[in-house]
Amino acid sequence: MHVFVINCGSSSLKYQLFRMPLEKPLCVGLVDRIGLDGGKWVHRVSPGAEEKSIEINQSMADHGTALLEVVRLLTDPNAGLIKSTAEIDAVGHRVVHGGETFASTTRITDEVKSKIRDLFSLAPLHNPANLSGIEVAEKLFPGAIQVAVFDTAFHQSMPEVAFRYAIPRTFYTREKIRAYGFHGTSHKYVTEQAGRLLNKTDAKLISMHLGNGCSMTAVRGGRSLDTSMGFGPVGGLIMGTRSGDMDTAVIFHLIDQLKFSPSEVNELLNKKSGMLGLTGYSDMRDIRQAMEKGDREAQLAFHMYAYRIKKYIGAYTAVLNGLDALIFTGGVGEHDEMMRQTICSELEYLGVCLDKGKNQSGPAGQRDISREDAPVRIFVIAANEELEIARQCYALIKPGEK
Amino acid sequence: MHVFVINCGSSSLKYQLFRMPLEKPLCVGLVDRIGLDGGKWVHRVSPGAEEKSIEINQSMADHGTALLEVVRLLTDPNAGLIKSTAEIDAVGHRVVHGGETFASTTRITDEVKSKIRDLFSLAPLHNPANLSGIEVAEKLFPGAIQVAVFDTAFHQSMPEVAFRYAIPRTFYTREKIRAYGFHGTSHKYVTEQAGRLLNKTDAKLISMHLGNGCSMTAVRGGRSLDTSMGFGPVGGLIMGTRSGDMDTAVIFHLIDQLKFSPSEVNELLNKKSGMLGLTGYSDMRDIRQAMEKGDREAQLAFHMYAYRIKKYIGAYTAVLNGLDALIFTGGVGEHDEMMRQTICSELEYLGVCLDKGKNQSGPAGQRDISREDAPVRIFVIAANEELEIARQCYALIKPGEK
Repeated sequence: MHVFVINCGSSSLKYQLFRMPLEKPLCVGLVDRIGLDGGKWVHRVSPGAEEKSIEINQSMADHGTALLEVVRLLTDPNAGLIKSTAEIDAVGHRVVHGGETFASTTRITDEVKSKIRDLFSLAPLHNPANLSGIEVAEKLFPGAIQVAVFDTAFHQSMPEVAFRYAIPRTFYTREKIRAYGFHGTSHKYVTEQAGRLLNKTDAKLISMHLGNGCSMTAVRGGRSLDTSMGFGPVGGLIMGTRSGDMDTAVIFHLIDQLKFSPSEVNELLNKKSGMLGLTGYSDMRDIRQAMEKGDREAQLAFHMYAYRIKKYIGAYTAVLNGLDALIFTGGVGEHDEMMRQTICSELEYLGVCLDKGKNQSGPAGQRDISREDAPVRIFVIAANEELEIARQCYALIKPGEK
Repeated sequence: MHVFVINCGSSSLKYQLFRMPLEKPLCVGLVDRIGLDGGKWVHRVSPGAEEKSIEINQSMADHGTALLEVVRLLTDPNAGLIKSTAEIDAVGHRVVHGGETFASTTRITDEVKSKIRDLFSLAPLHNPANLSGIEVAEKLFPGAIQVAVFDTAFHQSMPEVAFRYAIPRTFYTREKIRAYGFHGTSHKYVTEQAGRLLNKTDAKLISMHLGNGCSMTAVRGGRSLDTSMGFGPVGGLIMGTRSGDMDTAVIFHLIDQLKFSPSEVNELLNKKSGMLGLTGYSDMRDIRQAMEKGDREAQLAFHMYAYRIKKYIGAYTAVLNGLDALIFTGGVGEHDEMMRQTICSELEYLGVCLDKGKNQSGPAGQRDISREDAPVRIFVIAANEELEIARQCYALIKPGEK
């Protein structure tokens, strides 16, 4: 059977087709700049060793148009992978915000769609795009079951001490203002993989998803206990363009003394801050190049990024009262060995001791880069949110439907 | 010789008279509600065992009037402690914000006053009150040297990775936006005391100042390496009425979706949040009473307060790569044994093990409440910012002037 995974961003569409339960990806693609000039579409067949890649420069008016073109390519009599959309048994949708309504993956019904709509005010950019992807997919794949996998769901296990803010309680009860956390699918996937590697069901784990967006999660016994993103995706770690944690007093100083408007400050903290604000570059590879040329600001930003993560490692070890393993994932987490080394340095008191040789080279996928005699494991595990979504869809299909 | 210590708040004046180098407090007082109706003045002579206390209900127009009345009482032919103001050798002023200009205690000159004025925009409520106290004292004690002790100075040793925010760097270079930290005099005092108790000059210490305002500091070898308050005094721990750390996304949600004005949000986070916002009470003693009556919100807030501190203990232990001692100070830190126990519970991985018997009772001043065999000491040390200010004034007086 086939599971098709869709991830609609505000101006992008990512997709992946899996043969399940083999977990074999048949194709993976990204349509970028939807609704904008200069649209770009990359489609890769049989990703991996014998991969074939197609690049198309084409501007798509909206997500519906984009998905229709993707389906046309998938079912193309010559180049296609399936004969018709009827061969797709399930479509898995990444939905950013499930609020407190959705603590797990859910089959999509009219009621579910209406609840996703109710959560628009909590994720005004993402949930509308996600819902429009669902509605288009329902038309294009009428025979498939539609499944919503929420980015927040994994963190619904956080205790109230971790998710509440110290503001008057009616803001929580009436306005739903609390920490939700994001990247849940990624944290769930890598911590489950780590639990298997450790062969320990109640493992104390800290996962670091370090991509363009970054977050960390404390996990015990498969449950998220705390996470660095909160009500929105701007808090916690320093990211490509987002500030992460910052004193709220700065915002009012910018508004009162420096005469910024609130929306300018919001834009500043989300789009012009983080590594971009500190260095002029949002991509860690550019920052590493600048560092090698002796750029002092790039060096400082690199160490600020690591320092913030180190403090969260300490904080979450306190939450867990101990630590079995650290897990690195995401573009920076998987590929920047100097960042991993900087983060793990001078944490001997915790039993964190990186093996420099293992850190520098090794296969993709998943590996242990800690010193053999160290009490704490350090894993590098490749992110695979799409596979996790496909797994969750497959698990939700009733035996009779498989 | 005598040192007179002055702490001018926006509507209050605290003072204390010391005989140095004996460190003996001769009197201590508080004039409250200056410039407001219902003014109240409490003056205690020989604070401690044989103390005599005077309470006066009197409204004072401004800090100048208040200080003049205090001087009149101090030099009263019958009830006074000194014959004339000429017996005061030094006046020590607590000044909230020293910016990056003042990394240590400083003799006040016209240039120093002008620099304190330059910092008004960073502390618009406090620095003007502090400066007006200085100007009044210069007139009333013309023979004394005037000394400024800055609340931020101790934290000027923080490294750049700790004090910078991940926003465009011109906000730091041009606008001086960075983490400064506060309560420096208190953190300096208790960590120096702890260093003596440990007899270790490079001790790794975490001090917790838990009063109405709350902050924590990581100290190694007598230097502040990181602290929980940042640009302003609202961040970090949950306080009586201040929120502490909070996702900046909440602020823009309140402004954009719930139509708050920025100044309403600022007021909300500073004056209506923290323990007050969560429970209706800002004083921990009221919250403890409510908890005993089964108030669920009070119980939650109590545990949120402890949970936040526990995460900072973990984070700062990572900053220090180890830990020699925790230090509790301030009203809650010194007197709430249940809070201390909650904070220290389930931190065995760090070597933190509280002795329940020692925690429950013991003399004021300073004591060790950790289990004898525990690797980490836990100290309770009474806050004494005024004595620390007097000590720093005394240290600054040239031998010929003593």
